[in-house]
Amino acid sequence: MTEYCYRVDALDDIPAVLDLFTADAVLDFSFIGLPTMDGKPAFQAFYEGVFADMSHHNHTISNFRLDEYNGDTAVMRAYARGLGRSKAGGMVDVDVRYRMNFLRTENGWKITRYEIHPAMPMPDSLEEIHGHR
Amino acid sequence: MTEYCYRVDALDDIPAVLDLFTADAVLDFSFIGLPTMDGKPAFQAFYEGVFADMSHHNHTISNFRLDEYNGDTAVMRAYARGLGRSKAGGMVDVDVRYRMNFLRTENGWKITRYEIHPAMPMPDSLEEIHGHR
Amino acid sequence: MTEYCYRVDALDDIPAVLDLFTADAVLDFSFIGLPTMDGKPAFQAFYEGVFADMSHHNHTISNFRLDEYNGDTAVMRAYARGLGRSKAGGMVDVDVRYRMNFLRTENGWKITRYEIHPAMPMPDSLEEIHGHR
Repeated sequence: MTEYCYRVDALDDIPAVLDLFTADAVLDFSFIGLPTMDGKPAFQAFYEGVFADMSHHNHTISNFRLDEYNGDTAVMRAYARGLGRSKAGGMVDVDVRYRMNFLRTENGWKITRYEIHPAMPMPDSLEEIHGHR
Repeated sequence: MTEYCYRVDALDDIPAVLDLFTADAVLDFSFIGLPTMDGKPAFQAFYEGVFADMSHHNHTISNFRLDEYNGDTAVMRAYARGLGRSKAGGMVDVDVRYRMNFLRTENGWKITRYEIHPAMPMPDSLEEIHGHR
Repeated sequence: MTEYCYRVDALDDIPAVLDLFTADAVLDFSFIGLPTMDGKPAFQAFYEGVFADMSHHNHTISNFRLDEYNGDTAVMRAYARGLGRSKAGGMVDVDVRYRMNFLRTENGWKITRYEIHPAMPMPDSLEEIHGHR
C-alpha cells in the first residue's frame, strides 16, 4: 500500500504503478463516484489521464488494518488522505479509506482488487479533477 | 489505538467502542477543554452524544511511541488528526496527541486511561461540537 | 524519524534535538528553498531561531520506506505533514518528504544527513516563517 502511494505520487512512471497489480485486477472507485475498472487496460487509461492532468500528488496512508490473511491472499485496509493539484491549478483534498486485496505471486505480493470508500464528505473538486474518464 | 479509530469512526456501534476499555477506565479530555470521565457509564453517555450528533468522523493516528511496557501494562502515545462533520453541518479539524494506558486482560489489551492533549491551537468548533455533555 | 518529530515539536529542548544527529551531519533543506547546513553549529543556530519564533509545531510522518540498509548505515524516507504556528500568529501547513541517512553508533542510530523535499507546492508562509536564518 505504501509502495502504491510512492508510485502514484511520482506521476512519471505508469508501468511502475501497473506493476503493482495483477493483469485481471479490479479497481472499484464507485463508492466515491468514480469509475469501476476491470483489468489492466481499463485502469491504465485511467492512470494515464490522471498523470496527464496532475502536477502534484500526495497520498498519505495510516491506520493500517489486516482484515484477512490466508498465506497467499490477504486483505488490508487503511485510511488515506489524498492531496492533488492539477496542471490547470485545481486542488483536491480528500479523506478516504483504501481496501486492497492481495495475492502472493512469483514476483511478490500484487493487488487483485482496490476499493476506495469515502471517509469524509467528498468535495466537488474530486469529480472535477478525476471524473469523466 | 488503531482499532479505537475504526470503531469511533464507524459511528454506529457504541458497545464496540466501549469494549476497548476496562470498566473503570478514565477518559481525561480536560487538556483540550472537554470533560474528564470516570468509568464506563460516564463515557458511554459522552459517546452516545457524539454518535447522535456526528454524521462523519475520521481519526488518523501516526507517530506511535511506546512510553512504558511492563508485560501486562503499557503506555502508548501517538499523534492524531481528528476530522468531524456534525449532522448540523459543522466541521471540526483538530491536531492532538493521544496517550493511552493499557492492561492485558483475558480478553486482550484494554484501555485503562485515555488522555487527549493539544498539539495545535484548538479551534472553537471543538467546543461547539463536543462541549456541554 | 518519529523521535525527531516528538523532539522538534516539543519546542523546549534544543540539545534533545541535536542529540539525534552526528556532529558532522548535513541538513539540506535547499529543495524547499531553505538553507543547507553543514555540521551541528550551523543547524543548532537554525533550530534556535525556529524554537524562538514558534509557539506550536506538529510534524506527522507516514509512508515509511527503507531505501538502503547495510547493517551500520541506513537510508529512510517518509512523507511528512508539517504544521506550525508562529508566536507572531502566522500559520504554516506543508506537505513534504523526509529523507534521512543514519549511522549506527555506540549511542544508537544517529542522523548523518537530513533532506526535505517538496511534495505539494510550498506555501509562501514557509519562507515567511523559516526563511532568512
